[in-house]
Amino acid sequence: MITLHHCVSARSFRPLWALEEIGVPYELKMLPFPPRVLARAFMEVNPLGTIPAMEDDALFMTESAAICQYLAARYSPGVLDVAPHEADFGRYLNFLHFGEATLTFPQTLVLRYTHLEPPERQQPQVVEDYARWFHARLRTLAPLLETQPYLCAGRFTAADISVGYALMLAELIGLSERFAPSIAQYWSRLRERAGFLRAMRAQEAAAHAQNVSPVPAPRLRR
Amino acid sequence: MITLHHCVSARSFRPLWALEEIGVPYELKMLPFPPRVLARAFMEVNPLGTIPAMEDDALFMTESAAICQYLAARYSPGVLDVAPHEADFGRYLNFLHFGEATLTFPQTLVLRYTHLEPPERQQPQVVEDYARWFHARLRTLAPLLETQPYLCAGRFTAADISVGYALMLAELIGLSERFAPSIAQYWSRLRERAGFLRAMRAQEAAAHAQNVSPVPAPRLRR
Repeated sequence: MITLHHCVSARSFRPLWALEEIGVPYELKMLPFPPRVLARAFMEVNPLGTIPAMEDDALFMTESAAICQYLAARYSPGVLDVAPHEADFGRYLNFLHFGEATLTFPQTLVLRYTHLEPPERQQPQVVEDYARWFHARLRTLAPLLETQPYLCAGRFTAADISVGYALMLAELIGLSERFAPSIAQYWSRLRERAGFLRAMRAQEAAAHAQNVSPVPAPRLRR
Repeated sequence: MITLHHCVSARSFRPLWALEEIGVPYELKMLPFPPRVLARAFMEVNPLGTIPAMEDDALFMTESAAICQYLAARYSPGVLDVAPHEADFGRYLNFLHFGEATLTFPQTLVLRYTHLEPPERQQPQVVEDYARWFHARLRTLAPLLETQPYLCAGRFTAADISVGYALMLAELIGLSERFAPSIAQYWSRLRERAGFLRAMRAQEAAAHAQNVSPVPAPRLRR
């Protein structure tokens, strides 16, 4: 049985989306954001204090893009997964990492030093440095997405979930207005998927049932 | 034929180390750091301007941990790679991502706002925030490394290269003095490997042959 520890619309949305695309059963445990501060008992589940945390029997994982690749390889071979023998295997791995390391981490700096820190610790220069970084890196995807609907392998894969979540976060923190047209269209395509919509409904229902605010943290604090 | 674009001791050291562990032939193209500023022509090879950039025939990759996983799966199955059917497959993926997204990105903030930016743009608070982040996340590996020599699968894998590079960077920028004993010992074990030493010699020889400074950028600027 798979258990996913999740905060509304945080990085843990990636594995939630993957689970809903695949259709594998899971239990969703909701936490307030940030759990390190608002749900101290979670440190016993995950000493890092970060989400996602995923348990699949004895396996414990904490990296959202890695969990997507794991779920794809184990539960969705040939569909969400791209196997080593496929021509696009290397590109698939690259986009899985690119979505997190290159497109999401810079946004967490914008989020932290705009919304999460108290006023005296906000850092406008860092926010500007990493908003610019994000847009410069994202822009390199535009030519590719002008000619194909998904990132690689001629189909929707876990790599689209990794990059797609970075676009979702950009929208949440106000960075999506500068998306190039092909990237804005790609993001529309992703957010209309049945699996994405099921994941959105699943987090909303679980937040309601477990008494956690269904609104993602940055909007709460604006 | 594999071509790796590399700056001395930068993230591209990960794929260089993997290539030397595996023993597959490659061409090493050295660049000054940061290439975006000091080697503008590189933007035509990689529009992101980042290193690593790796070409393997028609494949082009830019994410260092993804390249390690690719090289392991394609050229080192059962040795550097951990396959989906192995019990530690999920843990392997998690450490591959953890090494970069969780342990390396925070250090790049310390590096940038201490060594790379001019004095008026340095950010002591951000440096402190992310040095603390790095140590808090790294600490969670200590119990594991007290009982086993490598991160997963009972052997040295590409995941050790991903995390090992984060330890190498920590040493370069002055964050290694606070390593827990088991982590310091793990790092000693890694840096004594024949593959690691070959990679160190390869970058030194290539830097000399191609007229690039053999000293990594942060030390240059101190």
